Amino acid sequence: MKQEVADLPSGPLDVYRRKASFPWKDMLIFLDGEEAMALKQRVFTALENDPVFSRRPGEDLPLEKMRELTFLRVKQLFRYDFLTNDEAMADPWKTVVLNDCLGMFDWSLAAKFFLSKGMFARTVASSGSARHHKFVDAIDDMTAYGCFALTELSHGSNTRAMRTTATYQPSTQEFIINSPDFEAAKFWVGNLGKTATHALVLAQLYTADGVCHGLHSFVVPVRDPKTLLALPGVLVGDMGKKLGQNGLDNGFALFHNVRIPRENLLNKTGDVTPAGTYVTPFQDPDKRFGASLGALSGGRVSISRMALVNLKLALTVAVRFSATRRQFGPKDGQELPVLEYQLQQWRLIPYLAAAYALERFSKSLFGNFVEFSMRQMMRDHSDTQAELGRELHALACSGKPLASWTAQRGIQECREACGGHGYLAMNRLGNLRDDNDPNCTYEGDNNVLLQQTSNYLMAWMDAKRRDGMRIQSPLHTVDFLDDFHQIRDGGFLARTVDDCMDSAVALAAYKWLVCFHLEESHERLQQLRSLGQDDFEARNNSQVYYCRDLALAYIEHCCLQRFHEWTRDDDTPSHLRAVLQKLCALYGLWSLSGHMATLYRGAFLSGKEPAHLIQTAILTLCAQLKDDAVALVDAMAPPDFILNSPIGNADGQLYKNLWSTVMQGHQALERPSWWKEFCADKPVVGSLRAKL
Amino acid sequence: MKQEVADLPSGPLDVYRRKASFPWKDMLIFLDGEEAMALKQRVFTALENDPVFSRRPGEDLPLEKMRELTFLRVKQLFRYDFLTNDEAMADPWKTVVLNDCLGMFDWSLAAKFFLSKGMFARTVASSGSARHHKFVDAIDDMTAYGCFALTELSHGSNTRAMRTTATYQPSTQEFIINSPDFEAAKFWVGNLGKTATHALVLAQLYTADGVCHGLHSFVVPVRDPKTLLALPGVLVGDMGKKLGQNGLDNGFALFHNVRIPRENLLNKTGDVTPAGTYVTPFQDPDKRFGASLGALSGGRVSISRMALVNLKLALTVAVRFSATRRQFGPKDGQELPVLEYQLQQWRLIPYLAAAYALERFSKSLFGNFVEFSMRQMMRDHSDTQAELGRELHALACSGKPLASWTAQRGIQECREACGGHGYLAMNRLGNLRDDNDPNCTYEGDNNVLLQQTSNYLMAWMDAKRRDGMRIQSPLHTVDFLDDFHQIRDGGFLARTVDDCMDSAVALAAYKWLVCFHLEESHERLQQLRSLGQDDFEARNNSQVYYCRDLALAYIEHCCLQRFHEWTRDDDTPSHLRAVLQKLCALYGLWSLSGHMATLYRGAFLSGKEPAHLIQTAILTLCAQLKDDAVALVDAMAPPDFILNSPIGNADGQLYKNLWSTVMQGHQALERPSWWKEFCADKPVVGSLRAKL
Repeated sequence: MKQEVADLPSGPLDVYRRKASFPWKDMLIFLDGEEAMALKQRVFTALENDPVFSRRPGEDLPLEKMRELTFLRVKQLFRYDFLTNDEAMADPWKTVVLNDCLGMFDWSLAAKFFLSKGMFARTVASSGSARHHKFVDAIDDMTAYGCFALTELSHGSNTRAMRTTATYQPSTQEFIINSPDFEAAKFWVGNLGKTATHALVLAQLYTADGVCHGLHSFVVPVRDPKTLLALPGVLVGDMGKKLGQNGLDNGFALFHNVRIPRENLLNKTGDVTPAGTYVTPFQDPDKRFGASLGALSGGRVSISRMALVNLKLALTVAVRFSATRRQFGPKDGQELPVLEYQLQQWRLIPYLAAAYALERFSKSLFGNFVEFSMRQMMRDHSDTQAELGRELHALACSGKPLASWTAQRGIQECREACGGHGYLAMNRLGNLRDDNDPNCTYEGDNNVLLQQTSNYLMAWMDAKRRDGMRIQSPLHTVDFLDDFHQIRDGGFLARTVDDCMDSAVALAAYKWLVCFHLEESHERLQQLRSLGQDDFEARNNSQVYYCRDLALAYIEHCCLQRFHEWTRDDDTPSHLRAVLQKLCALYGLWSLSGHMATLYRGAFLSGKEPAHLIQTAILTLCAQLKDDAVALVDAMAPPDFILNSPIGNADGQLYKNLWSTVMQGHQALERPSWWKEFCADKPVVGSLRAKL
Repeated sequence: MKQEVADLPSGPLDVYRRKASFPWKDMLIFLDGEEAMALKQRVFTALENDPVFSRRPGEDLPLEKMRELTFLRVKQLFRYDFLTNDEAMADPWKTVVLNDCLGMFDWSLAAKFFLSKGMFARTVASSGSARHHKFVDAIDDMTAYGCFALTELSHGSNTRAMRTTATYQPSTQEFIINSPDFEAAKFWVGNLGKTATHALVLAQLYTADGVCHGLHSFVVPVRDPKTLLALPGVLVGDMGKKLGQNGLDNGFALFHNVRIPRENLLNKTGDVTPAGTYVTPFQDPDKRFGASLGALSGGRVSISRMALVNLKLALTVAVRFSATRRQFGPKDGQELPVLEYQLQQWRLIPYLAAAYALERFSKSLFGNFVEFSMRQMMRDHSDTQAELGRELHALACSGKPLASWTAQRGIQECREACGGHGYLAMNRLGNLRDDNDPNCTYEGDNNVLLQQTSNYLMAWMDAKRRDGMRIQSPLHTVDFLDDFHQIRDGGFLARTVDDCMDSAVALAAYKWLVCFHLEESHERLQQLRSLGQDDFEARNNSQVYYCRDLALAYIEHCCLQRFHEWTRDDDTPSHLRAVLQKLCALYGLWSLSGHMATLYRGAFLSGKEPAHLIQTAILTLCAQLKDDAVALVDAMAPPDFILNSPIGNADGQLYKNLWSTVMQGHQALERPSWWKEFCADKPVVGSLRAKL
């Protein structure tokens, strides 16, 4: 296998590659595995060789053109059919690999493709029944194009407050879809701007008796597939330019008495008989709720992965740049690569560690999600399945914030660490930042989502106190809370910098941290309630410094725990363990250093020494890892064509690549078209001053 | 005066405006003063009424068009001549006000205008002599267009390593300008991409004897003013798209034996006689160095202000949005404005406090700079002036990082706090983030600049230890260090949340913090030196957790100190003091909360209580200030036309403004031009799979 991985071109990065403590190809094989590597190579090669996917770094395209190009590329993806439905079913991880590949090229492309093929078609398939297969088939051969319409202009986070209605009319056996006013227009719907022919619309289902049965999903045709013109009663259009992902046409729709057949209701969780009676197959709403929470997690699990991919790309650019950019140096000596400076190492290498931590975390979390989904398909209605659904929900609701914020901050640090050259569009860091940004917002604002996780943890605490039940969850992410008292009584164990090199040190501190925040949050809530605040108020007023910190500590602990176990796993090749253990220790200590104040005020730490140990350990690990940094990004980096960043090219020819891209820039050396505006028609200074 | 300020339109924001504890117009008048208000109004009104400045929120313009528009607008600025050179001289603050106004409209416009009129022309005037007035005159009537060329492709931070040469040839009395290779091409030069006719080039001056006299400034013609075509020997062009500020044409230039007259050397600090002898009027290089450091500060002082302006705009958008966006609420009650939630308050209101702190800081720092420059013009060669130069340098080198990072993080928080709507280009938060970003980089990378500040502080410490001299600086920002031991022995004084409402509490903590970091940094350096590291190594290895933290603590202290004094100043109207004191206390505690770990490990704090007090005080202040938040942004906000963000309009009609802007979007409701690509020519699924 190893022979099949192509060598990277020789150049200024060789110095660091030679200094690495491990072969980067082995790391690549360990991270990806043979099948994923083969799929990645197939996709990358096809894209690079196909003129439809051709592009120039930093090119300036109008919105309309970006959308056209993205559509043409999606069409080409149908022709390549990199992953058939059967292949995806046989190994769901491959859908993630494919999404990674497309996203590395351009997130708009990945989104435009998956919002129709995945989000629309898979939701129709899973929430509907046999009568809806035709919609899935139409998506699969592109006779239809789908979108998922939940958010409205005036409501996002508060999904229950959606105001679009679907009223059943028994006489015609139709639902009538209505937007009460423009504030209830569906908004932010990806693909709806220019392309979608069918929308999966979430609307309040009303029966003819005027009873509202809550939000349900309906397939609503919005454009004529033969003309792409809007259907009668549908005001549909494009929202315009976004900060990023501009190849994707986000849109809005306002419905005015749009009639759809009764059968277009996705009827898995509730249906209306032809005569107009609402029926539901579910008896136990609690279990259904747990299960539906789990199902919601899919999007958030994907987003965590997408954020990680952005972080990997940004780090590839910044690390390769830092290893080749030289600035300052000892007197009369050669200038040093900026990667040799402590400050630059400290800015970048912890994020590299975070990328490896999130690699493990996102992959294992996806595995958990697949397991849950499989059982769901096999109609597992057990308590364990419902409990798994709740746990997954808690993980996904905090995993998305952890990954998206880590990526957002990491990309910004990479941008700044590349100085001015990081500010050139051609080097892609702006594109990565802009495309990553919505990961903090869609499928739930990060701060709002964290409340779901803290609620989950508080519920365990309540159950323990109320019933004395053992805290134990299907994925064991909360099991340690059962040792609450023992953990709370513990203290920092490391006595030397060397001790801190073991990720167990940070892990133990995190266990304490979660317990501490859990207790404090619990007390805070009790206190606010005793002051007469109702549940709504008390929860709102216990977020900052309490529940929010609790949720973040929990997910960081979980991510660190999985990384820690991975570095000790028998399946982890022995010659890669040393570097992975260093990365793990660094990730743990660096994340922990954001909580030092809490560790001190809770008396887990005291005196100068522990902080000094942790800081020294972080700097020591950064210094030890700087010679591995290039190899560590080599193992995550896509080919240059996909990375699309001259300063991040694998050959390390920083200035040659940058200079030639600048020189090939559109009209780089040409006189501006408006040159006469300067050369003739000189302004009379102050001539308009009188008008002021 | 008060009557002249127009009322803001009535609407959903009225509720908050009525709840405010002070009249926003009074705050505006207090912040700006009559003259600045008049100038602002003159500029804003002219721009709004002039079709040349017309624009639509979120419009999608090609690079070429952005540059053309920016140029045409600059030309119009010459016609308005809002501020004559005499007026600017009489009241230098007005140049800042004008820059604020233009930047609020578009930073590319401000930059394009000031890089020629200010950076080029003023530098020529101040570093040159009578023989250079013609260049200044040409800039002033736009017969020439200027740019400032320092940075090269392979060198930015390390300015001394610039490789462009200017070699004197006595036989022709010319300098010959050369770029040794493309890595020494001048790069990142604003205005050089398309427009500049003259560049102020920093090059190594060589006399005919082969002796290098270091970097000097030369006026080098690069384009023919009659045609805008490049002059012989000059390869000049455009760098292409950046993350932001794309109305400004940044460019590069490569010089091949370009000849310029001897007189084009700016000769204030060094000259070459016709015969070829290098002469300099300076005897004491130490004083010259101090003075030149002070002169360098001008750009950084301006950048701090630019960052603040961006933060103000972002906060205006986010606060008005938060006061009108409703989501969730108590059971069966109306949904609440998101500003009512603790979490949203905590995300935004501390940045509002920071904006007020930076308002005071940037204005007072500019005052210090003007004072310094005036003395410089009067040829003050005193020790105090040199000392003032050093202190200004230390302030500017840390003030820029403080302001630009606070703005960058604050804008990102505002973006996220506005959810999806914050991600729409039309709401401008992306534009603000992109335009603010380079403030972290140009005129010195933030992290690199901070080293200048810590070096300054360490030098005081060294002098004290060596000579026992009293620590006292012209602006008194370091005077408290003389009480080092007393401060280090102190502890946290607040016993109640109420105590923390006084900004003196945070201020005292900051004094301790600076002393602590100073001591730790000093010890760290000593320790590394005793381990055999030379000065270069030792300094590099004492940045993270030591010198860097020291510089940041110093500048935050300084910013807080000036704010603190302002809230107690007799000139501050008594009815505004209450809200300003709250903002000041909040800014102090919130900034301090980033250093809690240090305060604990240094035993300034101990036990749970102090952290709890500080956190409670922060949340209490946020809650108290939320009813003032709208009025606080009203006092900083430009007119809607300038703000250019539908969700941030003064009338608070969030959805109406957003919806109508979307509907007026370019081809919002139109079918895409590429509709046939969807409707006909369907892809054969998998047809290209065989090629893989």
